[in-house]
Amino acid sequence: MAKYVYFFGNKKADGVGSMKNLLGGKGAGLAEMTNIGIRVPSGFTITTEVCTYYYKHNKKYPEGLKNEVINSLKMVEEAMGARFGDALNPLLVSVRSGARISMPGMMDTVLNLGLNDETVKGLINKSKNKRFAYDTYRRFVQMFSNVVLGIDSGIMESALEKKKKERNVKNDNELSPDDLKDLVYEFKDVVKKAKGIVFPDDPETQLWMGISAVFESWNVPRAITYRKLNKISEDWGTAVNVVSMVYGNMGNTSATGVAFTRNPSTGENGFYGEYLINAQGEDVVAGIRTPQPINEISKKNPNDVSLEHAMPSVYKDLLEYARLLEKHYKEMLDLEFTIQEGVLYMLQVRTGKRTAKAAVTIAVDMEKEGMIDKKTAILRIDPNSIAQLMYPTVDAKSKKDILAKGLPASPGAASGEVVFSAEEAEEETKKGKKVILVRMETSPEDIHGMSVAEGILTARGGMTSHAAVVARGMGKCAITGCSSLEINEKKGEIIVGNRIIKRGDVITLNGSNGEIYLGPVKMVTPEINEDFITIMNFANEFRKLRVRANADTPEDAKVARSYGAEGIGLCRTEHMFFKGDRIKAVREMILAGTAEERQKALGKLLPMQKSDFIELYNEMKGHSVNIRLLDPPLHEFLPKTESEIKELADIMNVTYERLKTKVVSLHEVNPMLGHRGCRLGVSYPEIYEMQVQAIMEAACEFHKSGNIIIPEIMIPVVGIYEEIKLLKELVVKKAKDVMSSYGVKLKFLVGTMIELPRACMVADEIAKEAEFFSFGTNDLTQTAFGFSRDDIGSFLPDYLNKNILKADPFIELDRNGVGELMKIAVQKGTQARPDIKLGICGEHGGDPGSIEFCNNLNLDYVSCSPYRVPVAIISAAHAALKN
Amino acid sequence: MAKYVYFFGNKKADGVGSMKNLLGGKGAGLAEMTNIGIRVPSGFTITTEVCTYYYKHNKKYPEGLKNEVINSLKMVEEAMGARFGDALNPLLVSVRSGARISMPGMMDTVLNLGLNDETVKGLINKSKNKRFAYDTYRRFVQMFSNVVLGIDSGIMESALEKKKKERNVKNDNELSPDDLKDLVYEFKDVVKKAKGIVFPDDPETQLWMGISAVFESWNVPRAITYRKLNKISEDWGTAVNVVSMVYGNMGNTSATGVAFTRNPSTGENGFYGEYLINAQGEDVVAGIRTPQPINEISKKNPNDVSLEHAMPSVYKDLLEYARLLEKHYKEMLDLEFTIQEGVLYMLQVRTGKRTAKAAVTIAVDMEKEGMIDKKTAILRIDPNSIAQLMYPTVDAKSKKDILAKGLPASPGAASGEVVFSAEEAEEETKKGKKVILVRMETSPEDIHGMSVAEGILTARGGMTSHAAVVARGMGKCAITGCSSLEINEKKGEIIVGNRIIKRGDVITLNGSNGEIYLGPVKMVTPEINEDFITIMNFANEFRKLRVRANADTPEDAKVARSYGAEGIGLCRTEHMFFKGDRIKAVREMILAGTAEERQKALGKLLPMQKSDFIELYNEMKGHSVNIRLLDPPLHEFLPKTESEIKELADIMNVTYERLKTKVVSLHEVNPMLGHRGCRLGVSYPEIYEMQVQAIMEAACEFHKSGNIIIPEIMIPVVGIYEEIKLLKELVVKKAKDVMSSYGVKLKFLVGTMIELPRACMVADEIAKEAEFFSFGTNDLTQTAFGFSRDDIGSFLPDYLNKNILKADPFIELDRNGVGELMKIAVQKGTQARPDIKLGICGEHGGDPGSIEFCNNLNLDYVSCSPYRVPVAIISAAHAALKN
Repeated sequence: MAKYVYFFGNKKADGVGSMKNLLGGKGAGLAEMTNIGIRVPSGFTITTEVCTYYYKHNKKYPEGLKNEVINSLKMVEEAMGARFGDALNPLLVSVRSGARISMPGMMDTVLNLGLNDETVKGLINKSKNKRFAYDTYRRFVQMFSNVVLGIDSGIMESALEKKKKERNVKNDNELSPDDLKDLVYEFKDVVKKAKGIVFPDDPETQLWMGISAVFESWNVPRAITYRKLNKISEDWGTAVNVVSMVYGNMGNTSATGVAFTRNPSTGENGFYGEYLINAQGEDVVAGIRTPQPINEISKKNPNDVSLEHAMPSVYKDLLEYARLLEKHYKEMLDLEFTIQEGVLYMLQVRTGKRTAKAAVTIAVDMEKEGMIDKKTAILRIDPNSIAQLMYPTVDAKSKKDILAKGLPASPGAASGEVVFSAEEAEEETKKGKKVILVRMETSPEDIHGMSVAEGILTARGGMTSHAAVVARGMGKCAITGCSSLEINEKKGEIIVGNRIIKRGDVITLNGSNGEIYLGPVKMVTPEINEDFITIMNFANEFRKLRVRANADTPEDAKVARSYGAEGIGLCRTEHMFFKGDRIKAVREMILAGTAEERQKALGKLLPMQKSDFIELYNEMKGHSVNIRLLDPPLHEFLPKTESEIKELADIMNVTYERLKTKVVSLHEVNPMLGHRGCRLGVSYPEIYEMQVQAIMEAACEFHKSGNIIIPEIMIPVVGIYEEIKLLKELVVKKAKDVMSSYGVKLKFLVGTMIELPRACMVADEIAKEAEFFSFGTNDLTQTAFGFSRDDIGSFLPDYLNKNILKADPFIELDRNGVGELMKIAVQKGTQARPDIKLGICGEHGGDPGSIEFCNNLNLDYVSCSPYRVPVAIISAAHAALKN
Repeated sequence: MAKYVYFFGNKKADGVGSMKNLLGGKGAGLAEMTNIGIRVPSGFTITTEVCTYYYKHNKKYPEGLKNEVINSLKMVEEAMGARFGDALNPLLVSVRSGARISMPGMMDTVLNLGLNDETVKGLINKSKNKRFAYDTYRRFVQMFSNVVLGIDSGIMESALEKKKKERNVKNDNELSPDDLKDLVYEFKDVVKKAKGIVFPDDPETQLWMGISAVFESWNVPRAITYRKLNKISEDWGTAVNVVSMVYGNMGNTSATGVAFTRNPSTGENGFYGEYLINAQGEDVVAGIRTPQPINEISKKNPNDVSLEHAMPSVYKDLLEYARLLEKHYKEMLDLEFTIQEGVLYMLQVRTGKRTAKAAVTIAVDMEKEGMIDKKTAILRIDPNSIAQLMYPTVDAKSKKDILAKGLPASPGAASGEVVFSAEEAEEETKKGKKVILVRMETSPEDIHGMSVAEGILTARGGMTSHAAVVARGMGKCAITGCSSLEINEKKGEIIVGNRIIKRGDVITLNGSNGEIYLGPVKMVTPEINEDFITIMNFANEFRKLRVRANADTPEDAKVARSYGAEGIGLCRTEHMFFKGDRIKAVREMILAGTAEERQKALGKLLPMQKSDFIELYNEMKGHSVNIRLLDPPLHEFLPKTESEIKELADIMNVTYERLKTKVVSLHEVNPMLGHRGCRLGVSYPEIYEMQVQAIMEAACEFHKSGNIIIPEIMIPVVGIYEEIKLLKELVVKKAKDVMSSYGVKLKFLVGTMIELPRACMVADEIAKEAEFFSFGTNDLTQTAFGFSRDDIGSFLPDYLNKNILKADPFIELDRNGVGELMKIAVQKGTQARPDIKLGICGEHGGDPGSIEFCNNLNLDYVSCSPYRVPVAIISAAHAALKN
C-alpha cells in the first residue's frame, strides 16, 4: 500500500531531502532538517500523490489517508507534548501547500488550526498571555473564513477597522483581549450570514477543511496561470504540510525572520538576513514595522538592533544551523525561522534565489572552498540570467509610473526623451540629449537613429522583429509590440490610455520585462568582475560548441571578442549599406538601368565595403569571419511614402516618376518570400561580385600585413542546388582573380545559409558545393511554420494562451518541426561532405535551450548577438555537461 | 570495336527502327523502311555516339570512322550503280542531321554533295538535262557556301537577283544553263574573297566538310535554345545521314511530296497529303507554287490535279507503302517521298504530329481496328493537349496583330472590349457587351468582374497568381504577368510600346501562348465527341487515382461532374463571401468589436452559406464534398486605398477613422505568412462554428430529402498538432449539435490541408486527429522554396533562362524538395492512421507530371480545376499504366 503521509519530529523523519517530487520542496526540506538534527516543529506532509489522486477521483481521498493522518497527528502530539483539541494544552497547527517548485503566494495557507472557545483557554493557560491568545484566535477565524470558507477578506477587515475606530486606536495590537474576542464572534456571524453555515469548532473538521482548501487551491485560476507561465505540469500536484505552530510573537524573547547563507544580491560569503522581535511571519511581509539586520556586520543604521546583539546565543544557534545546512546542501540557502521564547525553530529551507552576479560569485567561491566542483559551479548558473550582467537594469526598489507594457525584446534599461524618427534621434543626440526612438515599427532606414538612441520602442512587431533583432545586436534596450500606444508622429505625441506623451517627454524602458515608465527611473549597472571571468573559463573547459557572434561593425566585433567570441558567425553586409551616405550609392545602384550603370554605382561602394571588412578583420585576427552577401530585397533601400519619394528624387536628381516607377516595380506582396538573397545574386551578379571583391581584397591586404583571417563567404536563401553551383563559381572565380592580382593565396570558404525547408530536403545536393552550412533559423522558422515574424503578433498571444504553442518559436527553437528539418539537413549534408562546417546564426544561437539542441545535433558552433556571447558560452557548457 | 556507321540499301539495313537513340529518328526510319522492303535511296547513318565523341574529344572523330564511311560509301555506290566523284556516272548525296527527337529547322543540311566541274558533266550525261544539271550545281555551291563555309546567303541571293535582272527574267528556272554556270563561278569567287579559300572540288573533302558542319550545328545557339525549351539533353547528340540524291525535279514524271497516313487535323482514317510535280522538297516549303492534293477524295478545288489522277500507278505504290508502314508502326505516320522519273522513293517516315482532336479519334479508331490495345490508345494521348478540347482556341490560320506577350495562365481564347475594373465589367456586360478585364493584378474583390468577363489580362503575377488560379477555375482564358503593359486606369488606357489601347477597344487574348492581339481574331471551338467519351472510358478502366474538382459554385460543380469528376476536392468558402452583397455582412463581421457583434454578423451569413452548400451538394449527389473553412486573412475583404475606404465607410455607416484603423491594424507585411487559415479559427472560433453549422445543416437537410453526400470539413494552414486538436473538437462538437437537432446521423470527415513544411514534419501527430490530408501544394511550394507566387515574376525568368529551375515549380511539382516533404508526410501520416485519406488540391492536381508523382505516392485522389478534369483522368491512367 502506498504511503500517503510522512511524519517528521523528534529528530527523525519518514522522508528525506531528495523527495521533493513526493513531498514538495517545503516538506522535503522539513524532513531533511529534522534528520540532520535541526530543531523543526514536528509535523507531517501529505504527499503530492494525494493531490493527483484527489483530482483524478472526483475530489475524493485515497483509502487509508484518514488513518495515516490520525496516526501522524498522534506522533506530532507526542513530539510536541500537546494534544490537538485539548482544552488544557492544545496543539495548534498550520496547514500549508508545498509543490515540487515554489509557487510563492499562489496557493493557500491556514495558520493556528485547532482553536475554538475551549482550546483558546488552553492557549491562555500555556502562554500566560490572554491578548496573544485572543489575537491568535482572531487571526485564525479571520484567515480560515477567508481561505477555507471563501468569505471576502474585506468584510472582516472592515469589521476590524470599525472596532479600532470604536476603541479609538490605530494598531491591531492596541485592541484589548475582549475586543479581539468580540471580533471572533463577529467573524463567525459573518460566516453564518454569508454562507449559512456555522463556523466549525471541531479541530479535526478544521484540519480536514484546511487540507481540502490547500488541494483546491492547486487549481485556482492564478495558480493555473502561474504554472503555465513557469511551465509547471498540472500533474505534479501539491503536498500539504501540517506543522505544529510556534510563535514569534510571544514577547520580547520571541522573534521571526528570514536569512540567506550568503548575500543573495552580491554573492558575498556572509550570513545575511532580517528579523523582527515579537512578530509573526506575516508581520514581516506586511511591512508595518521595519525588519532589523540579523547581524552586526550588515547593520546599515547605527540605531538598528541586530539579532546577534539582541539574542547572542540564539544568533549563534542560527549561524550554526545555517553553516550546517549550507555544508549539507552545498548550496546557498534561504531559511525561515521563528524564535519562541528564546528557542530557535527552523521553519523552512530552500535554495536561495539570487541575482546573476551573486550566482556567479557564489559558484566560484564554493568551487574555491572545495564545496562543489567546476561542473556543478557551471550548472549553478542560469545561462539566461547572465544577460543581466551585460546590461544596466532598472533598480527594482525605485518607484515607477507604469505607462504601458510591451514585449521585452532586448534586455537592459534606458531613459531618454521621446523622438519619433531616426533623423530627430540624430539631431537631438548631436545636441547632447539622450533619446528613446519611438516608431510604429523600424526598418533598415532607421538604423542610424537606433544606433544613437538609448533605447527603442515600437508599437508593432514581435520578439524577432527588425527592431528587436537590431537592438539585441547593438546590446541596446528595446521594447516591441506595445500595441496600446497610439503613435501620432505628425502631432509628435503618443496616446496611452487617457495619457498623452509628447515629443521630448522623458520615458524609461525596462527591456527585461517590457514595462514603460513615465520619467526617469534609477538604474543599476553591474560590472563584469573576476568571478565572471573565472566562470567563463570553467565553461570553456567543458563546452564542445564554439561560440561566435553576429556582428556587422567593428564595434560589435570588439564587444564580441571581449566577451569571448571565437569569430564572426554572421556579418550582414546590408547593414553597412546604411552607414553614412553610402545609401546614396546603393540607391544609384538600384536605379541603374543597365548592368554598366549598376557597375559604376557598385564601384563607389567597393572601397567602402572593403574598408569595413578590414576593420572587422582587425578585431577578429586569427579567427573566421562569416560574411553574408546581400540578402534583403532591394526595395528595403528605397523610401515608401509619397513625400519620402519626392524628397529623395530631388536629392538624387532624378524625376519623381522615375523613382516612383522603380519603387512600384520593386514592390512585393510578400517581401519575405520575394526577390532576395541569392536570387539577387542570380539577377544582378555584379552586386555579389563587388562584395566578394571587397571581402577578398581586404583579406589579401590583411594577409600581406602579416595577419591571419579566414573569410567565409555565405550565400543566403539558397534552396536549389543550381543556385549555389552558379554562385559558388562566381565567388571562387572572383576570389581567385583578386588573390592572383595580390599574389596572395589564402584559405577561404564558400557556403550557404540553410533557411528554407527545401534546402534541408536537398542538403546533400547543396553540400556538394557548400563548404559550410549556417542554419538561419529565423527564416527557417518563418517558412516551416508559415509564420511571418513581422505579423505573428496578431495571433501569437492567442496561441500561447490556448497552449497551442508552448513558447514563441522565434525565441525557442521548435525542435519537432524546425529541429527535424535541421536534423535532415545535418544528416544529408554530412553524408555528402563529411567535413562540412555546421553552425547556426539565427536568433536561437543565443537561447540556452536551442543551444543545447545544437550541441546535440553536433553543430560546430553557434553564433549570437555580441551581448549574448557569455550566455551562449555557459549554455554550451551546460549542454555538454548534460549529455 | 564500336560500330559507327550503319548502312542501308539493297533491301537490307544494318540498323532497325528501334535504334532511334543511336541512329536518330530519320536514320532509324530509313533503316526500318529498307528492311521491310520499301524503296529508299541507299545511304548510311553515322551514329549519335560519334557526335558525343566529337564534343568530348576536342572535335576529333573516333578512330576507324573514316574507314567505315569509305566502306559504306562503296556499298552505296554499289546499291545505286553510280560512283562518288565519277565523271561519267556520278553518285550525289545529301548530308542531313537527325537527332533522337526531331528538331525541325534547327540543324544543317547540305544537298547534292559530290558535284564539281567534272561530275556535273556526268550529271548532264545521266539526266540528259543541262539546265537541271547546272541548276543542281548552282544550288549545291550556294548551299555549301552558306551552310558549310559560313558565307552570308544574302550575298549569293543578290548575285542571283542581279543575274535575273541582267537576263530580264523573273524566276530562277528562266535562267539558261550558262547563266547558272556563271553563277557557280561567281559564288566560288565570293568564297575566295570572303574566306580566302578555294571552294573544295574534291567530293570526299566536300563529304567530310558536310559531316563536320552537321555535327557543328548541334551546338549553334538556336539549337541549344531549342533543346532547353524542349528539354532535350545535350548529351544525346545528332546522327548524320548520308543518302543518295534522288530528284523530283527531273521533269513531269518526277515529283515530291509529304503525306499523312490519316488526317492530322481531324483524325479521320483517310490517306492525306500534298505534292508538287517537277519540284524539289525546298520548292514545297518556299511556297512559290501551290501544292496539289494527293488524292481525288481530298480535292477541294475542281482545278486541282491529284497524284492519284496524274500518276495512278505511282499513287498506288505510295498508298501501299503508307498502308504497309502504318500497319508496321501501328501509328499514324508522316511520310516524305520523291518520285524520280516515275520511280517512287521514300525519304522519311516518322510519327505524325496531330491535333488533340485527331489524337483522340486516331487512338479510338486504331483500337477499334485491332491495331493497338486500349492501354496503347490511352498512352497515345498527350494529357496536356486534351485541355485544347475544352476551350475555344485562336484560329492558327487567321491574321493577328500581336500587341504583347504575357504568361499563358489559363488556356482558351477570348475577344472583348477593354475594361479596367470589376464594376465596369459588370456594367458593360449588362449592356450586352463582351469585355476583357485588364488589371495590374486581381484580388478576391475582382471576382464578380472576372466572372462576367470573357477573359482576364494582368500586368503582374505569375502562372499561379490570383488571376491565373481563379481564371483556370472558371475555365476562362487569362494572360498574366504581361509586364510590357503600362496600365493607366484613371486615363482609361494601356500603353504598349508606342501604341495606346483605350477603354472600349477590342483585344483578343490567346491563353494558350500568352499572345495579346489588337482587334477580334477568328476562333475555333472544338466539340466533345463520342471518341472523347470512349477514350475517357478507356482511361477510367486503368487509372488508380480518383479525380475530383476544385469547385466553389454549383456551376463549377456541374461542369466538373459533366467531365467525370468524382467529388469536390476543394471548395474555397471565401469565394462565396464575395457573392452578391454578402461582402457587406462579411465586413460587418470583421469590424465587429466583440465576439457578440461578430456572432450577429455571422448570423446573417449562415443562411447564405447554407444555401450555397445545398446547391453544391445537389450537383455532387452521392460523392464527397471537401469544404475548406475560411482561409485568407481578413484584410482581403477590406478595401485598401484611401478613397475606397472613404466610400465604404459611408456605405457601412461607420466613421472613416474606425474603418481606417481596422484596415491599418489588419495590415500585414507578409500576408501569405500571416493571420490566416486555422489561425483565424483559433482567434475567432465563431467564424468556423458558423461555417460548420452551415455545412452540416445543409448536409442534414440534403440527407433528409433522401440524398447522400459526404461532407469533408477541411481545416487550412495547420502546422501544429494542437491546432487540429482544438479545431477538430470545435468542428465535431458543432457537427454533432446540428445532427442531433435534425435527428440525423451522417458520415462526415474532418481533416487538414497539408501546406506547410512543419505539417509534413509532424504529420504523424496531425494524423492522430486528421481523418484526411489534402496536399495544398501551392502553399507548400511557396513555403518550401520561400517563393511568393505573387512576386516570383521578378526573378523566375532569370531562373529559367539560367537553368536554375527546369520549370515553374507552381506548374510542375518539384519532386526533389516539395515532393520529398510530401513523401515524409504520407509516410508519417499513414503510419499514425493507416486508413487516412490522401489527396492533393493544389494547382498541380491538374498537371500530368505531378499527377504521375501523386500516383506513385499512392494518394487516393487528385483535385483540379473543372476544365482540367479530363486531363487529370488521362494523366492518372498514364501514371497507372507506366508503373
